[in-house]
Amino acid sequence: MKAAVLRELKSPLVIENDVPIPEFGPRDVLMRVKQCGICVTDVRIASGARPVGELPFIMGHEGVGIVEEIGSEVANFIKGDRVLMNPLVSCGMCKNCSSARDNLCENRKLIGISPGVQGVYAEYGVIPERNLYKLPGEVSYSDGVLITSNLASAFHGARRVDFKASETACIYGVGAIGKLLALVLKSFGASLIIGVVRSEKSLKAAAAFGVDYLINSKKEDPVKRIKELTGGKGVDAGFEVVGKHEAILQAIASTRAGGRTCILGVPFYHVIMDFEDELGFFHEICEKEATIINSWGYVRQEFPMMINMVKKGLIDFSPCRIKIIPIEEVNEGLKLNKEGLYTRVIIGF
Amino acid sequence: MKAAVLRELKSPLVIENDVPIPEFGPRDVLMRVKQCGICVTDVRIASGARPVGELPFIMGHEGVGIVEEIGSEVANFIKGDRVLMNPLVSCGMCKNCSSARDNLCENRKLIGISPGVQGVYAEYGVIPERNLYKLPGEVSYSDGVLITSNLASAFHGARRVDFKASETACIYGVGAIGKLLALVLKSFGASLIIGVVRSEKSLKAAAAFGVDYLINSKKEDPVKRIKELTGGKGVDAGFEVVGKHEAILQAIASTRAGGRTCILGVPFYHVIMDFEDELGFFHEICEKEATIINSWGYVRQEFPMMINMVKKGLIDFSPCRIKIIPIEEVNEGLKLNKEGLYTRVIIGF
Amino acid sequence: MKAAVLRELKSPLVIENDVPIPEFGPRDVLMRVKQCGICVTDVRIASGARPVGELPFIMGHEGVGIVEEIGSEVANFIKGDRVLMNPLVSCGMCKNCSSARDNLCENRKLIGISPGVQGVYAEYGVIPERNLYKLPGEVSYSDGVLITSNLASAFHGARRVDFKASETACIYGVGAIGKLLALVLKSFGASLIIGVVRSEKSLKAAAAFGVDYLINSKKEDPVKRIKELTGGKGVDAGFEVVGKHEAILQAIASTRAGGRTCILGVPFYHVIMDFEDELGFFHEICEKEATIINSWGYVRQEFPMMINMVKKGLIDFSPCRIKIIPIEEVNEGLKLNKEGLYTRVIIGF
Amino acid sequence: MKAAVLRELKSPLVIENDVPIPEFGPRDVLMRVKQCGICVTDVRIASGARPVGELPFIMGHEGVGIVEEIGSEVANFIKGDRVLMNPLVSCGMCKNCSSARDNLCENRKLIGISPGVQGVYAEYGVIPERNLYKLPGEVSYSDGVLITSNLASAFHGARRVDFKASETACIYGVGAIGKLLALVLKSFGASLIIGVVRSEKSLKAAAAFGVDYLINSKKEDPVKRIKELTGGKGVDAGFEVVGKHEAILQAIASTRAGGRTCILGVPFYHVIMDFEDELGFFHEICEKEATIINSWGYVRQEFPMMINMVKKGLIDFSPCRIKIIPIEEVNEGLKLNKEGLYTRVIIGF
Repeated sequence: MKAAVLRELKSPLVIENDVPIPEFGPRDVLMRVKQCGICVTDVRIASGARPVGELPFIMGHEGVGIVEEIGSEVANFIKGDRVLMNPLVSCGMCKNCSSARDNLCENRKLIGISPGVQGVYAEYGVIPERNLYKLPGEVSYSDGVLITSNLASAFHGARRVDFKASETACIYGVGAIGKLLALVLKSFGASLIIGVVRSEKSLKAAAAFGVDYLINSKKEDPVKRIKELTGGKGVDAGFEVVGKHEAILQAIASTRAGGRTCILGVPFYHVIMDFEDELGFFHEICEKEATIINSWGYVRQEFPMMINMVKKGLIDFSPCRIKIIPIEEVNEGLKLNKEGLYTRVIIGF
Repeated sequence: MKAAVLRELKSPLVIENDVPIPEFGPRDVLMRVKQCGICVTDVRIASGARPVGELPFIMGHEGVGIVEEIGSEVANFIKGDRVLMNPLVSCGMCKNCSSARDNLCENRKLIGISPGVQGVYAEYGVIPERNLYKLPGEVSYSDGVLITSNLASAFHGARRVDFKASETACIYGVGAIGKLLALVLKSFGASLIIGVVRSEKSLKAAAAFGVDYLINSKKEDPVKRIKELTGGKGVDAGFEVVGKHEAILQAIASTRAGGRTCILGVPFYHVIMDFEDELGFFHEICEKEATIINSWGYVRQEFPMMINMVKKGLIDFSPCRIKIIPIEEVNEGLKLNKEGLYTRVIIGF
Repeated sequence: MKAAVLRELKSPLVIENDVPIPEFGPRDVLMRVKQCGICVTDVRIASGARPVGELPFIMGHEGVGIVEEIGSEVANFIKGDRVLMNPLVSCGMCKNCSSARDNLCENRKLIGISPGVQGVYAEYGVIPERNLYKLPGEVSYSDGVLITSNLASAFHGARRVDFKASETACIYGVGAIGKLLALVLKSFGASLIIGVVRSEKSLKAAAAFGVDYLINSKKEDPVKRIKELTGGKGVDAGFEVVGKHEAILQAIASTRAGGRTCILGVPFYHVIMDFEDELGFFHEICEKEATIINSWGYVRQEFPMMINMVKKGLIDFSPCRIKIIPIEEVNEGLKLNKEGLYTRVIIGF
Repeated sequence: MKAAVLRELKSPLVIENDVPIPEFGPRDVLMRVKQCGICVTDVRIASGARPVGELPFIMGHEGVGIVEEIGSEVANFIKGDRVLMNPLVSCGMCKNCSSARDNLCENRKLIGISPGVQGVYAEYGVIPERNLYKLPGEVSYSDGVLITSNLASAFHGARRVDFKASETACIYGVGAIGKLLALVLKSFGASLIIGVVRSEKSLKAAAAFGVDYLINSKKEDPVKRIKELTGGKGVDAGFEVVGKHEAILQAIASTRAGGRTCILGVPFYHVIMDFEDELGFFHEICEKEATIINSWGYVRQEFPMMINMVKKGLIDFSPCRIKIIPIEEVNEGLKLNKEGLYTRVIIGF
């Protein structure tokens, strides 16, 4: 089969035509890949920032496709089914799996990311039955890629704070994830969504995703403005999706007393926080009884929910910009990902 | 009536015998004070660290007593009832009051703390009916003081994290609040309570309160030890009650993936946090999907719960050390509070 | 002032022009009534089915209006404010009030319903400050009446089952409440709403309210059809709003294993239930671990939520049919209520 | 191996010595059985009331033992581990499994109960790794049997109603399950447990399990008495464990407004309910906003919790009466089960 192979870190992927179709076990499905999203994690893997063990390695964890063959014990799929894959392979046994939080599985592996677990930058991939979900006719392959890529993180964040209809929200960072978070919150019944961005470009793009107000934090103090827009109180739920520690502190400060702040981003750099004021930050979060909630990935029960909402048009991807490229252009695709012009760059077969 | 009056900041309270008995409205109760706890907040008020507005002022917010007279609209109390007062006067109208979180009442006042709201370092005090709870015969006045002082904060913290039977916990700081938190967690069905202290003295005292293991953080790394005691995973619920930022970070690090960390203490000093490691603290709290929950004060529905649990012996104050002093010794009492030898120093009438 | 007075049970209300404007206390607001909905409860009061004590009595509990005067302690309103009244006067002290469930207040009174508590079928009414909510400019008086009448019950029901975005629902009874329940569930992100009705007329009207499928239970078995529409499993949340015991049992049977069934209706008649099959109904609700939830009225924190959602257009009353009549036609209005042609018949001043 | 084999319905089990040791797959464990509880379900299977498909069949679903051999993919157990088996084999894939409710698994099988799934009335049994839990040294084999038999149902019931420390409870039926439910509620911090029984014998036995008050429903009205014992309001959580429809209605009536009623029993007979009073039962459950919760079996995450609580002595089985018999006496054991003298009759190897 054809595949894009990582043979050397920091080098372009190599398109090979004679990669053997992988073998599969009794509970696995052989999926003919139709599309696969290109993720920033792939860029990090290719650069060596995220180790994947021995090379060669086939990346690709945002795949959708058609069931080609099934293992002897597979009961829920037949050849020809259109499917979406959940790349997180959880053990189903540990405490977190048993508690409906398999994103925290103690034995988890990620298809196309974990060492030795080959991905779907390829014509075929092997996916455990437990990690596949049927795509209804109303949901296109590209919708499927958007579900498993950008939407899943946003959706999980909204569920982590148990976002309720009529609530207000702010989102620090209205990029690929932040925009879909706005779509999700809208579909959950948000009465107000305030986006905070750092460039004029973002300001324009965000409106289509349901953001009610946009604040350019380079031009005005976002916390002050958010308080003004919410009767001096702050939002019910503050979200941070950029991974900057200043934005985390601002998201906390923008949340009302009794509200919840959800952190989806991770600062990957040397952070120094200086709280000089004796009655300042700590006293405020104490007095308002802050609840600060991290959100990591997504959990398996969220896939049917998301697929259903996209199917019914409750989450509408039409404002998303996607670009579908042939696998031969995968190296250009990895570069495009960095530029951020598209909601998702997708390899199409 | 007799009262201890704050006439000048940073000066001893003055015992006066001819303070007028305060007037009360139709929904108020005139309470004959039997006991009143001395709180560190009182020390801070007397020193000027917490402003109470115009002097003279009567402090005292941890009172129990007997109903002496009732306002014309009071329906739930009669003369002679033994009562405990909740010092937090909430409005009952704002969003937080309507949502069972009146500790965050937008219009809250604290008896004996808020400017103009005189307290019960006195023979009589005026308490709104809504802030009184009957003490059953099985609950002594001193028990009542312990409920409204140390217990309430601990109890609210345990409820904020929705602590469940069979769960494990660690407590950073096993002082007056930390000890009662151990009592509370035990009564909630904790299967393991690990205390972290900084002195040998605390180590001995804590055992009686139900702490299963005690770690002296001056001698060993508490995070490492807590992980060892919990199969490498960390506790279900980590608590911080000392108000040190290092302890907050340690409590978070001591909590398992998917667990909750509750912060009851507030760092009242210049805090600098330095997270140098690129894949360190932030990555860890992200990957384990940390939930960090502040706990502030207590809410009104918790008083009947606490009174009931003390009445039934589910929370047993017998390991607490209290000292009852006459009001004439209030200034010595304020000093004793600072020394920390007693769970509570209490003025008795 | 002018008012419609109930002087004799089972007789028409009498329009009187010289009823004294009621006196108000320090925490009360004198509201100039702009509109007041006519409720089936009013019909029951006038007929004697629901006793209101001594006559004469002024009914009317679904009022909106303008603040005319305020009591000396009123802090949140000024003359001229447009307001909606919550007729449920709760004590703010009992266990249920303290737990955010003031619909179950142990000392509750209902304006215009409870004996001695006069309502607002009148030019002016006295409303405690705590029971008033400001109407933003975007929310008309009629919207306000719809909020406090039909919407409130539906909204509370959806919140009682904690209805989540992406869930499916069925509604037994798509009348005045059922239609608004469909609006609410849609705004909460329902992916499927199935209505069950007993007449062709209802079938047509329901579509505009967001009902996706309509089943005429006279023509086909609703449980069987709902199972078919949900992959054989049943809906996530079943609702019953007609008050028929058959519909209650059907709503339970239509709910999936692990789902919740919400009962808003009350059978007011002699009910006999016969469960003949040894392995039938009881075994089924046991094996599917049924959760059956009654919903009664609404709670005070829901008013700001509802007002906000109507203001933002998340709940859109445009498919509702209302009829505004002068108070002189109140007796005709009471009759119209029984006919059910309108979502609400409203007295306008 | 030796096993007790069901060769014919309604006939005694046959002890056979040459039953082949069953084969096991890569994810299975071969368990050497040390003890196995005798359950009323076994009595029903042997009588034909619960079909198990083709005979011969080996019953036995409450087993504990020692790991004898492991399949090639088993990672969490080694030969010699003391283990407890969870008989419920869930698929780990369906909606309910993904939502931490695998008791409702759409593809569930029960070891020793489901047709074709042989149990552990035998020296050896095959158990999937996912269904095994390690027994710590502090937990005896008999404790293990009590956990997986009587305790599990009671524990799940308490968790289904989210029973909280300080709450009050009543239990209709204080037999084998009801007694352990009392133990569980006590360990969760119950402030009051009222048992309702129908015989003097039960009255005496119940006290040791933590029941505070016992009502003989043959001698007095239990609902009236429970109201009296709870200030006229009813308990926070009412439980029914006998499977009688009268007791279900009484448990609902004994629960306070805003409380929860949990039904663990199932009426297996022709039930007729007659609600004659127009403003009676339905109006009451409506006005008190009843929440009625079925509890079915147990879920996999509860096993580590229960084992931990027994290990730490938070749940103490010492008041339980068990009887251990050799497998040769299994037919007498099945008869003893019916007599109800023992908390559990257990086959010991």
